[in-house]
Amino acid sequence: MSDIKIDIKNALPEGLSSEINVDGAKALEILQSKSGAGNDFLGWLELPNEYSEADIADIEAAAASFKDCEYVVCIGIGGSYLGAKAVVEALSDSFAAFKVSAAPRILFAGQNIGEDYLFELQELLAGSKFGIIVISKSGTTTEPAIAFRLLKAQLEAQVGKAEAAKLIVAITDARRGALRQLATEEGYRTFVIADNVGGRFSVLSPVGLLPIAVAGFDIRALLKGASDMAVKTLADSAENPALTYAKARNALYRQGKKIEILVNYNPKLHFLAEWWKQLYGESEGKEHKGIFPASVDNSTDLHSMGQWIQDGERSIFETVITVEEQRHSLRIPSDDANLDGLNYIADRRIDEVNKMAELGTRIAHIDGGVPNLKISLPRIDEYNLGALLYFFEKGCGISGYMLGVNPFNQPGVEDYKRNMFALLRKPGYEAESEAIAKKL
Amino acid sequence: MSDIKIDIKNALPEGLSSEINVDGAKALEILQSKSGAGNDFLGWLELPNEYSEADIADIEAAAASFKDCEYVVCIGIGGSYLGAKAVVEALSDSFAAFKVSAAPRILFAGQNIGEDYLFELQELLAGSKFGIIVISKSGTTTEPAIAFRLLKAQLEAQVGKAEAAKLIVAITDARRGALRQLATEEGYRTFVIADNVGGRFSVLSPVGLLPIAVAGFDIRALLKGASDMAVKTLADSAENPALTYAKARNALYRQGKKIEILVNYNPKLHFLAEWWKQLYGESEGKEHKGIFPASVDNSTDLHSMGQWIQDGERSIFETVITVEEQRHSLRIPSDDANLDGLNYIADRRIDEVNKMAELGTRIAHIDGGVPNLKISLPRIDEYNLGALLYFFEKGCGISGYMLGVNPFNQPGVEDYKRNMFALLRKPGYEAESEAIAKKL
Repeated sequence: MSDIKIDIKNALPEGLSSEINVDGAKALEILQSKSGAGNDFLGWLELPNEYSEADIADIEAAAASFKDCEYVVCIGIGGSYLGAKAVVEALSDSFAAFKVSAAPRILFAGQNIGEDYLFELQELLAGSKFGIIVISKSGTTTEPAIAFRLLKAQLEAQVGKAEAAKLIVAITDARRGALRQLATEEGYRTFVIADNVGGRFSVLSPVGLLPIAVAGFDIRALLKGASDMAVKTLADSAENPALTYAKARNALYRQGKKIEILVNYNPKLHFLAEWWKQLYGESEGKEHKGIFPASVDNSTDLHSMGQWIQDGERSIFETVITVEEQRHSLRIPSDDANLDGLNYIADRRIDEVNKMAELGTRIAHIDGGVPNLKISLPRIDEYNLGALLYFFEKGCGISGYMLGVNPFNQPGVEDYKRNMFALLRKPGYEAESEAIAKKL
Repeated sequence: MSDIKIDIKNALPEGLSSEINVDGAKALEILQSKSGAGNDFLGWLELPNEYSEADIADIEAAAASFKDCEYVVCIGIGGSYLGAKAVVEALSDSFAAFKVSAAPRILFAGQNIGEDYLFELQELLAGSKFGIIVISKSGTTTEPAIAFRLLKAQLEAQVGKAEAAKLIVAITDARRGALRQLATEEGYRTFVIADNVGGRFSVLSPVGLLPIAVAGFDIRALLKGASDMAVKTLADSAENPALTYAKARNALYRQGKKIEILVNYNPKLHFLAEWWKQLYGESEGKEHKGIFPASVDNSTDLHSMGQWIQDGERSIFETVITVEEQRHSLRIPSDDANLDGLNYIADRRIDEVNKMAELGTRIAHIDGGVPNLKISLPRIDEYNLGALLYFFEKGCGISGYMLGVNPFNQPGVEDYKRNMFALLRKPGYEAESEAIAKKL
């Protein structure tokens, strides 16, 4: 069973109000009975238990098909980028880029429209053996579509069309869309993006699992962690950590705490926080409400955002992810001269000092008026990450319903796309093109 | 002359109020006459013009002394980390880690207390030729002191004490402190952290310049850009971009816009935003006031934070850095099948699409109630980055005085350190240790 724990007593010392408890229970019930807004997008609830042995073996086989590649480029944006990125970064060596790697190196593209980024990527791939995982429900989303056009052409030029088709895996709609059609025509291996799993909830689908497997990590353990967390987050109980998290953050929001800062003391969790920002920001930021999600990597950012958090506007709360056990062991050496005055901690593990920085900060922030939620992660491994991902997803669904929004749509994301198409004079956007021209 | 421009008309369509103009002029005058709070920390104002040819040659010579190193580890935290990191990342190839490099690779340490991070760094450096730049005013700041103990011992073990001393450069106080004493004893090459330049304003001192030079970039152009911007930001005039920026953001804050999101459309500017967050957050976040600084990398984050920005609480404004000209040129290929429907933009430069994403987003956000400041950067090179850094520094000094705080101290950063020392039972903290033990 997963040992992820949440502690809210330093945020809500008097506990949760009965109003919050009632609202939380209702939201959980709406989510679980699939009776709320956006209920056609709840496929993620069952994802961890949905895979047969054959399904998993299929993903592993696809991952193995890239084994001779130096690089595998994952093309995708939003949830088709951040889930895999978060898990791969969390599990990788901090200096993996400079070390010999048995597994292919995972690179990302199609998550921006950077001309220099794509140019420099193509330069890197020139003459290298590489593969492509292209992730797009429709196959027409601008960012990934541009990247895929470029890299598909490059791969075909480097190894020929037939060989390239073996080095491309498409993750897309089961039947419809440009990418499905292309994959069928070219004979790409494919995986399905289910209709009922939105992008930001897709990390435990092939969208996240395939790149994570290619990078050499254990997707079975990831799914097991998620599956155990699914069990743990079913009941309306104080032992349901996702429910407790959702209730605590809504209670704080109702008290006027408008910004949640997700805090880590382990830089490997940087992109986990980026994934979390999409999950919560995109689910809740609508109808002119929602907590603003921000993040810091400590102790680094104690020396940048620390001053603001300690003494700025009292509109924030923190959610600290503490990693109980580190992967490696390293102690502070003793030094006879002791000019730096560190001998008082000589021979102690560095993580002990980190933990005291964390505890000291928590106390300072609480004293300074920053409510503090704490999530304990036993260690950073596939099992615990799987549990953490599902915990956050479940907490998000509950939290969105407590806020009174549809947590599973993202109508605001369309606005910039519509304008962009109008500005680029995309066929079908003639009226919008005319309208926007008048604004310029 | 620098061509960095700021456009505030999409944030304050009716212009700046006379109250704001008066307050801005006063703040500029206080800063320039050095008559305000924190006026013993204004050395950064003159930094770009302070260097003689000999000073610069000295930094370049120190940089050249590392030329045979594969890695140079910069040890520092806060302003002794973020300035160099911001500039090196902005000027580097997006995939530099995987490409052959003529210059040593710059790595960072001492900016966290990550046991795994330091273990994995030592593993990388084992058997590699590396050098160290250690940056600390006192030499006793916990994070860098731990990293330096470890890496100094490693370097001495790998190449011997005498050779190691030639591969270590210390940037520290002119006379006092543990690191100065050690540097004198060991014969390290040194540079001075002036008493009147705070960490977050130190990027144009040797603290930033040496690592930037080691990475192979032109510090003379960087300083020239800053120097030109210094001239441009002297007068109380509508042509002073730093003054305009400070006035606009304070006007928006007074209107209840509590969060500023620094937006880029070029991922190379990610750490420029992190540097900016320290600069503004640490300067203004005090006395329970100050704008909360956040950042996004678009179009990536349009698919994560975009929904919140479009439709969440109307408590935000955006400051967009637009980079007019890219380094490379890459066009979207044509494709006969056109399944992805991209042929309407075939043969166009990718940056054209990026610019339309940017413009389309700006229009959507303005329509959605997000005031929009725009900073135009002609291109990402040393000259323009130098100008941008100085622009933000000057704007920060003015802005802090407009807010009514001392922009040059950081009292809140001490709170966590005091608790950490108490928890670690550091000698001299006996009373604090006793007090904090009662809280646990």
